[in-house]
Amino acid sequence: MRPVLPGATLGILGGGQLGRMLALEARRLGYRVAVLDPMRDSPAGQVADERIIASFDDVGAALRLARNADVVTYEFENVDVRVVEAIERMGKIVRPGSRVLKLTQNRLLEKSFLRGKGVPVTPFHKVDSREDLDDARRQVGLPAVLKTASGGYDGKGQAVVHTERAARAAFHRLGRRNLIWERFVPLKAELSVIAARTWDGKFREYPIAENVHRDNILWTTVAPARIPASTAREAVRMARKAADGLDLVGVFCLELFWGRDGRLLANELAPRPHNSGHYTLDACRTSQFEQQLRAVCGLPLGSTAPLGAAAMVNILGNGGGPRLTGIEDALSKTDAALHLYGKAQTRPGRKMGHLTAVAGTPAEALKTALRARRLLTWR
Amino acid sequence: MRPVLPGATLGILGGGQLGRMLALEARRLGYRVAVLDPMRDSPAGQVADERIIASFDDVGAALRLARNADVVTYEFENVDVRVVEAIERMGKIVRPGSRVLKLTQNRLLEKSFLRGKGVPVTPFHKVDSREDLDDARRQVGLPAVLKTASGGYDGKGQAVVHTERAARAAFHRLGRRNLIWERFVPLKAELSVIAARTWDGKFREYPIAENVHRDNILWTTVAPARIPASTAREAVRMARKAADGLDLVGVFCLELFWGRDGRLLANELAPRPHNSGHYTLDACRTSQFEQQLRAVCGLPLGSTAPLGAAAMVNILGNGGGPRLTGIEDALSKTDAALHLYGKAQTRPGRKMGHLTAVAGTPAEALKTALRARRLLTWR
Repeated sequence: MRPVLPGATLGILGGGQLGRMLALEARRLGYRVAVLDPMRDSPAGQVADERIIASFDDVGAALRLARNADVVTYEFENVDVRVVEAIERMGKIVRPGSRVLKLTQNRLLEKSFLRGKGVPVTPFHKVDSREDLDDARRQVGLPAVLKTASGGYDGKGQAVVHTERAARAAFHRLGRRNLIWERFVPLKAELSVIAARTWDGKFREYPIAENVHRDNILWTTVAPARIPASTAREAVRMARKAADGLDLVGVFCLELFWGRDGRLLANELAPRPHNSGHYTLDACRTSQFEQQLRAVCGLPLGSTAPLGAAAMVNILGNGGGPRLTGIEDALSKTDAALHLYGKAQTRPGRKMGHLTAVAGTPAEALKTALRARRLLTWR
Repeated sequence: MRPVLPGATLGILGGGQLGRMLALEARRLGYRVAVLDPMRDSPAGQVADERIIASFDDVGAALRLARNADVVTYEFENVDVRVVEAIERMGKIVRPGSRVLKLTQNRLLEKSFLRGKGVPVTPFHKVDSREDLDDARRQVGLPAVLKTASGGYDGKGQAVVHTERAARAAFHRLGRRNLIWERFVPLKAELSVIAARTWDGKFREYPIAENVHRDNILWTTVAPARIPASTAREAVRMARKAADGLDLVGVFCLELFWGRDGRLLANELAPRPHNSGHYTLDACRTSQFEQQLRAVCGLPLGSTAPLGAAAMVNILGNGGGPRLTGIEDALSKTDAALHLYGKAQTRPGRKMGHLTAVAGTPAEALKTALRARRLLTWR
């Protein structure tokens, strides 16, 4: 396949921070960028050459984006599949394509697919009725997490349930159909594998990330994860199996549970750069965003070698006010790198930016990043 | 002084690659960017929120830029001083200000100033007439470099002269007035100090760079320079003296000659990020562009610690054609980082991009960067 070279235009469906960081890396390499997003002033739109303001199910707008782009990608997986299919039908390459998008938009399809490819997943059961709910409880058991099969993110649309009664309440609250019952797994840690795969099957992974969530939103990542080498190898094998199985082209994230029993189970796959890979911007030879650009454009993958141990801490809105204060302190008292996404509005839990620290050990890096974060306050 | 914080708008006079890289770093930190440049599709304009298309002596346009900006800087020193003065008169902060600009626009003023501050410079003499030419030859001597005192860059407007006759020819060719005669110094190496100074006099330097020019255009840089520690310390002392003397706020580059006799002589000062500091983007904790943003915005300076030994090789246009080929090879066979400036037109000697390599030693890094460069061809 002929690569899409610098000077060409990358079309991005979605204008969030992932699109922004991808666009900034694309700019560094001399690409043009076009972004489709419903927001007039989206984080990625701000740094694009061309902005198309339209909803994610507007096929006409997506085709306009595609006409001006040499290759198209999406930066989040709630883009309407029909939109991606329409772009593909006009003969434009979308990476990863509509098939990957369709599978990863639905937890049931995704988990079944992964299991079919030999990637261990948490025990699960579809829930479309009261009967399914009872079957799920009997066959998969409690405690469990009941989730909408599609559409949820950052913990929205899910409930941890410990009792039959709680399960029924969650079942009603979540809409009674199109749900998935997943066994709740006692964990040593949550991990993720950020990796990239090219159109001709080449594969490169980054150091495994170890994640801590707060209220279901990623709070901190350290890399490399503090796990045995054999566990790290197994995590990469699982990621590769999943990507090969999907014939996925691009950067993706496989989120894994590392159970108390030492086993790894796949939780979900995001077919795009991921919050838990932000550390690569400051701490690896090639960032996940440059890697995504390379994979999507058919260029050879870059080195994923780390420059040190890394930690990332998200800067989330917390209802404390619209203005981030303490930046001078954070920048003078630590050597953490600051990334802000250009979002004018803050709200509790919204990802407004992140901090990265690089150090000799993950713990040291995390200490620095957390120290920097504590110096920042929304006022 | 109250710092200019993320969310605010940085105004940049000049739309070249330096402005582009500054703008990209500003975006990462959540700033908005406005750019003034005569070109409709300038490298920095492409990545700005706001573009003002106007010449560098258009005071009205510059005031429009300034009105929408919270702080203003310039990315090259051939901006009209009256424009910067007009912005300052309207009460907007320009960093570095008009005084620094005025001094560094004129080699005679600059060299006299540096010498007055105790920074050793190459012996020089003004040349405004045939009499001056003779005086210069007698007092400073041959071989020499005859240069226009203002306006030249990348070797334009200068001539190395070895004989009286060649000096007379160059004198006529360069316009017979507003010239400077500089003693030609036999060199061990050309060095540069990239450093930053804040409004309250804080100062941080990067590892000294060692530069090789070709046809008067920077060709390669390695850092750290292969010089004795005492020479490096002296270079930094000279840079600090110069910046303190100018009360310069921002990133600057002091170009130095390291003579065969082991002495350091200042050649010129550029009051902005510099081509020989591009390596900092991939090889230092804080890049020269983030550092410039911090200094200009009144934020604390970032760490200039290197991540390894570095080398930078420019990608210059060479008349071979408009399309850069071999990118896939360069990216697959080396781990050099590629930067392209989004310039649609190439021409011989035009700076189109650069490559950076990071390795254990400067020689190793240079080998990688040169190897990557050799794989690229204009077709």
